[in-house]
Amino acid sequence: MEKVSKNFLKDSHLITELKLCNVRLIDNSKFPWIILIPKRKNITDIFQLKKKDQNLLIQEIVYASKLMKKVFKAFNLNVEKIGNIVYQLHIHVIARSKKDSSWPLSVWVVKKTTYSKTTLNKTILKLQKAFKV
Amino acid sequence: MEKVSKNFLKDSHLITELKLCNVRLIDNSKFPWIILIPKRKNITDIFQLKKKDQNLLIQEIVYASKLMKKVFKAFNLNVEKIGNIVYQLHIHVIARSKKDSSWPLSVWVVKKTTYSKTTLNKTILKLQKAFKV
Repeated sequence: MEKVSKNFLKDSHLITELKLCNVRLIDNSKFPWIILIPKRKNITDIFQLKKKDQNLLIQEIVYASKLMKKVFKAFNLNVEKIGNIVYQLHIHVIARSKKDSSWPLSVWVVKKTTYSKTTLNKTILKLQKAFKV
Repeated sequence: MEKVSKNFLKDSHLITELKLCNVRLIDNSKFPWIILIPKRKNITDIFQLKKKDQNLLIQEIVYASKLMKKVFKAFNLNVEKIGNIVYQLHIHVIARSKKDSSWPLSVWVVKKTTYSKTTLNKTILKLQKAFKV
């Protein structure tokens, strides 16, 4: 497994490992929120991936998006490559609901709230079941 | 050309038409900011595109990202599918600089400022030159 940034380890939990990406749950109970982290060294941008990996990335985004939509009955999905603070390439996939705390605005306009231990474990298990871990 | 949402027509300007997407400049002088709009009907999510179009989308994101990085000497690129307000699928590609008005936060935390007519025209021409229109 490719080494991941310490920021990811602190703020997120491993769900599963796909062919290209590690999938991690972001510890923010305000939104069902995962990140896909390509297991490639020294990559900060999508265009730095090889073409084969770029196609794998979009396929894993599609796969993860469908699961997130289904598992959390999402009204919409936000799929975002930001990376202004943690440079290692990672794609946010966030299940949005019309009743969530920042709807219809971006998730970035509200502060995070960490999960309780029980809800965190339940959410990890729910996702691992969906990803067939 | 596929009909585009009225919101796009109001707040953005056509730069060029790629194989899958129309490319439009967002009228916000705070950030060099384009959107890619797949020319397909009734699509709100990446996973609703056919697999061939999904691969085309990532290739056009890569192509547009490289141009945005070069033309605006971007430190980083934000690539985002949000669509909470305008549902028609569109991908934001935003050139970020460490000196821009919301760095290192998301572009969504600051209000937009429209371009002056002169700067708007210059920016459109600069992009059209880069996209070889």
